[in-house]
Amino acid sequence: MNIPGELTPSQRILLGPGPSCVHPRVYQAMAKPIVGHLDPEFLQVMDEIQEQLRFVMQTRNRLTIAISGTGSAGMEAAFVNVIEPGDKVVVGVNGVFGNRMSDIVSRCGAEAIRVEAEWGQAIDLQKLEDALKQAGQVKAVALVHAETSTGVLQPLEQAGALCKKHGALLILDAVTSLAGLPVKVDEWQIDVCYSGTQKCLSCPPGLAPLTLSPAALDIAQNRKTKVQSWYLDVTMIASYWQDSSRAYHHTAPINMNYGLREALRLVQEEGLETRFERHRRNSAILLKQLSELDLTPFVDESIRLPSLNAMSIPNGIDEAAVRRRLLNEYDIEIGGGLGALAGKVWRIGLMGESSKKANVVYLAAALREILG
Amino acid sequence: MNIPGELTPSQRILLGPGPSCVHPRVYQAMAKPIVGHLDPEFLQVMDEIQEQLRFVMQTRNRLTIAISGTGSAGMEAAFVNVIEPGDKVVVGVNGVFGNRMSDIVSRCGAEAIRVEAEWGQAIDLQKLEDALKQAGQVKAVALVHAETSTGVLQPLEQAGALCKKHGALLILDAVTSLAGLPVKVDEWQIDVCYSGTQKCLSCPPGLAPLTLSPAALDIAQNRKTKVQSWYLDVTMIASYWQDSSRAYHHTAPINMNYGLREALRLVQEEGLETRFERHRRNSAILLKQLSELDLTPFVDESIRLPSLNAMSIPNGIDEAAVRRRLLNEYDIEIGGGLGALAGKVWRIGLMGESSKKANVVYLAAALREILG
Repeated sequence: MNIPGELTPSQRILLGPGPSCVHPRVYQAMAKPIVGHLDPEFLQVMDEIQEQLRFVMQTRNRLTIAISGTGSAGMEAAFVNVIEPGDKVVVGVNGVFGNRMSDIVSRCGAEAIRVEAEWGQAIDLQKLEDALKQAGQVKAVALVHAETSTGVLQPLEQAGALCKKHGALLILDAVTSLAGLPVKVDEWQIDVCYSGTQKCLSCPPGLAPLTLSPAALDIAQNRKTKVQSWYLDVTMIASYWQDSSRAYHHTAPINMNYGLREALRLVQEEGLETRFERHRRNSAILLKQLSELDLTPFVDESIRLPSLNAMSIPNGIDEAAVRRRLLNEYDIEIGGGLGALAGKVWRIGLMGESSKKANVVYLAAALREILG
Repeated sequence: MNIPGELTPSQRILLGPGPSCVHPRVYQAMAKPIVGHLDPEFLQVMDEIQEQLRFVMQTRNRLTIAISGTGSAGMEAAFVNVIEPGDKVVVGVNGVFGNRMSDIVSRCGAEAIRVEAEWGQAIDLQKLEDALKQAGQVKAVALVHAETSTGVLQPLEQAGALCKKHGALLILDAVTSLAGLPVKVDEWQIDVCYSGTQKCLSCPPGLAPLTLSPAALDIAQNRKTKVQSWYLDVTMIASYWQDSSRAYHHTAPINMNYGLREALRLVQEEGLETRFERHRRNSAILLKQLSELDLTPFVDESIRLPSLNAMSIPNGIDEAAVRRRLLNEYDIEIGGGLGALAGKVWRIGLMGESSKKANVVYLAAALREILG
């Protein structure tokens, strides 16, 4: 038997695609005494989190909860509850996460109609409409608000109306946008929206905010088939989170929810607009400082994310070696490219607690030393 | 906008069906600085956890990991990876969790052949064999080792050989047994075994240990259909946990894994046999002290769990009022009955850190005051 030693993780500055840095108050909250998952004190925590999530998701949807898994569990929950075998789902695919949505749709026994864009581009709403017209009855349209693999921000102002016109639900991946840039669930007519805690919310990974519009909830409650996932079946989860019965479903991750509550308190204290402006400002500072190192953004300014800055890597640079040096010599994590962008971009996340001028200046200085 | 106040949970003594009390070292580990999910330091943590889990699960199975969800996610992962539509699965049902397994089997599009026993009884292996003979080719047999809803310990020594004889996998729910009583995965020829962290491991809920035998893994790797859950697809998860590529799948709950590593360190330091003996001893003390209050165990001694003590409630007692007083006046949580046993039993968990003589004596004294 080999007993590992005491855990002594380095103090990293997390400027990758997530997780982001965590505020000390969130760590402290997670370390507070555990209570039972049906303890009145925990039920109150759940009530508070629902209100807090409605605030940050800008929605009045009653079903607004934290799924007991990471962002990918949120994605799966978003699909398995409203999609049934034989349904058609139009999926915008312009990066890893659109691909993943498409995969999940097919695992639901549904047909994924892929509307693609090059990695680094947004999904063209005209192409989306063409697909909707051509497909006949479509159950849902799925889009990624903030493609973590490319740094692209998907414009959404018109998407909701387009989906309504065609009688389709709009499912939105807001994993890398929520609490870092506006996610207006009600105003944008989004039916299902999910996120993760470890990005702009700056809570460690382990929970996935999820909200369903009344229309989506109605579909989930009136399915012909059982939801293929027992664990992610929102009608049962909602009984635990919301009904007066508080019917036991699964044991919620108590201390993770403590952490999320505290992370959301920090968001509330800062205010959404102030927080969004901070994310924009630090991204602008980053791009300016990196431009002095001849590093240019991969994504056009009009659709560029402030939370995830993809930078094109100049020829002749061993990009993995640069990242290793950043990590080992400077305790800075940045991300490499995924899939089609492997070796071609660095992904610099400025999310939540990580979005600080100090981090930007330090990273630019470190890159100057390494590249210079 | 309503900002909730600072979180100030009570210091509960958790003697219910889980979660159990958490050692201060586990809280401290969870509050250590987060690193990235692909950081070499975290990859090492994952390697260490795998070794630690093999120790506590008494297995050499290579695929021995922590699923990024609670015990119920572990249950779902156990089934969706090896069961395909049309398969037959014999499920032992003698409580809530056998029922849940049966539900999940049907959500896999498979046929659940229920072998039932009364709540409070174990599954009769002869009836299991009859079902196997009658059903023809059966893909798997599923049993609950420790029925949290009834306090029954399922005898397992013969079950593995029986399954092998009929060419069926053996799937075991070890949620309320692992690290509290022996779970001998290899010796008992168990093919798929899962647990949760918040019971006898005494880590907060949020992760689910899971192990697959080489035979089960082979089945998972050679399916005709894709696993219906993207999130719980073990072949992809194994790439992240084990392959040299460390291919990104989802962002693991970093700090929860810190906590699990520390909880497992505590198990290793105590030693399995010492820990099992402690669970037995404190259960015996509990039963003796409660017998003086005329409280009798619901389950026969031969199949009684030391980790979850179901006590019959005498007539004329408002059991919910007793539990409320325990919680509000003594900060003690015990569990009520579930399903068929609602109002009929109290479920007193003595799991992991909660299994202490001090807790037993305090609970008995509190019950004496309330009932006396």
